Amino acid sequence: MAVNLAVPPREALLAVPGVDIGTASAAIARPGRRDVLVLRLAEGARTAGVFTRNRFCAAPVSVCREHLTHGGAVRALVVNTGCANAGTGERGLADAHATCAHLAHRLETESVGILPFSTGVILEHLPMMRLLAGVDAAVADLGGSDWLDAAQAIMTTDTVPKATSRRLDVDGHAITVTGIAKGAGMIRPDMATMLGFIATDAGVSAACLQHWVRAAADASFNRVTVDGDTSTNDSFVLMASGASALRIDEANEDGAAARALRAAIISVAQELAQAIVRDGEGATKFITVCVDGARDEAEAAAVAFTVAHSPLVKTAFFASDPNLGRILAAVGRAGIDDLDVDGVDLYLDDVHVAARGGRHPQYREEDGQRVMARPEITVRIGLGRGSASTTVWTCDLSHEYVSINADYRS
Amino acid sequence: MAVNLAVPPREALLAVPGVDIGTASAAIARPGRRDVLVLRLAEGARTAGVFTRNRFCAAPVSVCREHLTHGGAVRALVVNTGCANAGTGERGLADAHATCAHLAHRLETESVGILPFSTGVILEHLPMMRLLAGVDAAVADLGGSDWLDAAQAIMTTDTVPKATSRRLDVDGHAITVTGIAKGAGMIRPDMATMLGFIATDAGVSAACLQHWVRAAADASFNRVTVDGDTSTNDSFVLMASGASALRIDEANEDGAAARALRAAIISVAQELAQAIVRDGEGATKFITVCVDGARDEAEAAAVAFTVAHSPLVKTAFFASDPNLGRILAAVGRAGIDDLDVDGVDLYLDDVHVAARGGRHPQYREEDGQRVMARPEITVRIGLGRGSASTTVWTCDLSHEYVSINADYRS
Repeated sequence: MAVNLAVPPREALLAVPGVDIGTASAAIARPGRRDVLVLRLAEGARTAGVFTRNRFCAAPVSVCREHLTHGGAVRALVVNTGCANAGTGERGLADAHATCAHLAHRLETESVGILPFSTGVILEHLPMMRLLAGVDAAVADLGGSDWLDAAQAIMTTDTVPKATSRRLDVDGHAITVTGIAKGAGMIRPDMATMLGFIATDAGVSAACLQHWVRAAADASFNRVTVDGDTSTNDSFVLMASGASALRIDEANEDGAAARALRAAIISVAQELAQAIVRDGEGATKFITVCVDGARDEAEAAAVAFTVAHSPLVKTAFFASDPNLGRILAAVGRAGIDDLDVDGVDLYLDDVHVAARGGRHPQYREEDGQRVMARPEITVRIGLGRGSASTTVWTCDLSHEYVSINADYRS
Repeated sequence: MAVNLAVPPREALLAVPGVDIGTASAAIARPGRRDVLVLRLAEGARTAGVFTRNRFCAAPVSVCREHLTHGGAVRALVVNTGCANAGTGERGLADAHATCAHLAHRLETESVGILPFSTGVILEHLPMMRLLAGVDAAVADLGGSDWLDAAQAIMTTDTVPKATSRRLDVDGHAITVTGIAKGAGMIRPDMATMLGFIATDAGVSAACLQHWVRAAADASFNRVTVDGDTSTNDSFVLMASGASALRIDEANEDGAAARALRAAIISVAQELAQAIVRDGEGATKFITVCVDGARDEAEAAAVAFTVAHSPLVKTAFFASDPNLGRILAAVGRAGIDDLDVDGVDLYLDDVHVAARGGRHPQYREEDGQRVMARPEITVRIGLGRGSASTTVWTCDLSHEYVSINADYRS
């Protein structure tokens, strides 16, 4: 049911020199499907990440944070789907550490050079025997660079693997940026999505990567919501293998080359974040919520997310019903205590629905109906009290969302 | 589909001396059903109310606030369902005023003595011809005291009319408290429910009523949520007709008589608020969320409402699936930045599910399954960081919720 989202053609996903991919089936998720990914980085690669702010963060998130403070000399990522290793206490931490140690041994490196990631059911322990066997199989599979396999190996309720690439010429270097992501429910990232990984072959310093991963998250994964539920496992990692001769560091971070690469990374992150919404659990519509005329961006974001989270707004979109008072009701409860509703405008694509706190005199139901029937709709809300703005992407709330989440474990 | 909620027996709903009821069918909602209520108060009655904090408050809410500041000498309430008169700008205000003027004329009183209420679709104008004809018919019907008719006349997507009574002996006076409410969706009151009206025949000063209406709202309607969507029309009004000789004012507000009456009012308000959740759109389960061990009540409420609003928690309850990590994930994103998850306990009725940030060693899936199959479930979350607590009532999220809200206007 994904909205205008197709499986990316394998040939469109560009290998990133300095990054090797291996996948395996370990029967952690459904038997027979790929559920373990190992991603090996060339020596000298640099890595930065942002992670969930959920206080019940998963064990692998804690381990990632710890290992990244060790200087960022990351040599490999290991990802499993099917079990989130969250709400698992001390044993969960031990399992995440054991996974790192196992892979480090296989790759003849140190455990602190491994970043572990898990996604799936919360409050259950990892099946370590099966997982470690899967890690071995994924290591044996290393050497290729099949990003479509990688995207498939990290899916949970996703119906479409999410991956995209950019190639750009920077200072005479042909640079590749390729990323993958997963996520369809429990999506209201508060740093990053469930899991997002973007790699480039440029050489980028750890400090620059840290700036960029945050900027990219803020412009992409932190701007989407499916159901308002921030995951325990949100992780977004940016990797620069350095296989290309291009070098970016603090000295040239503001130059044209860095800006071009940064823009490509943000573009990949945005496409992946939007893909998560297009594949949102049960989604039948892709909704862009733009809020402008706000006093500051926090205010704009509060209004945009209140609208994007409202079950009543989302069910109206599912029904293609221009019951647009529900949007005004959400604006009204978004926490702006001194909002003057007389200054509020509401547009649905090109249709001016509400003005000055009420229905626009020229608004006709059939115009609203025409827009609501589209699979992609932009809601624009003008607050009329400042010049700050923001954009958030979301989807509708359908029967399928309830079915998926009522049946997730069965 | 309401959870353990039956139509109240007509004979259990006690007439309140000094309060007359009239209802009519005005074809604003579905033709043939009662959709207009007029409630007339004896001279000398006192009234107080609390209203939505949604900035897009409906026109009748603005008029109620204005009329209540005129000294509170309210002589009648007029309620319509089918159209919320919200998001209707100047014309909506004029319509609400015209409705008051019309009823005041019929009752030979002043317009400021009338409180108007509307509920139904937002962003549409009231059909004034039909409404005023309905008001006339309801006035002609005045004289009885049929609270079941009254409860039915204010329903929207409610499947069960909500009404209850208490009789108590206070200082030798037989006092009656009877209340009605409506609401099933767009329920996350931020002062009161969609519409709640409670009347007593005691004589209570306006100042006392104002204290009590706020206390009752905080203990009842402000503790329930169906979908987190705060309505534009939330209104909760407490009326004291003074037909009984009992008199409560600031002088004896702390005495035993006042305390008994206040407790009865809060009990009625809680039963009505819980009835709204039991009849929550698509509800199949009634969930009580208790949070204790919080530093302050605001913190407890933030956690309780985050759990109660989580679509993933609510769909797990619908599925009777003990996917309880979703509850921990909601606790973790409730905004307590320094929450130590090692101090968190989670109980499902009598089953200890999680302790010290992880699964309780003795917890068995079949115990969780046994509790999840029940129609009424208490979730208890211990935060282990203080002594404040709160309780919130909510329901699950089912296919029926989506159906109801996708089809509401059709």
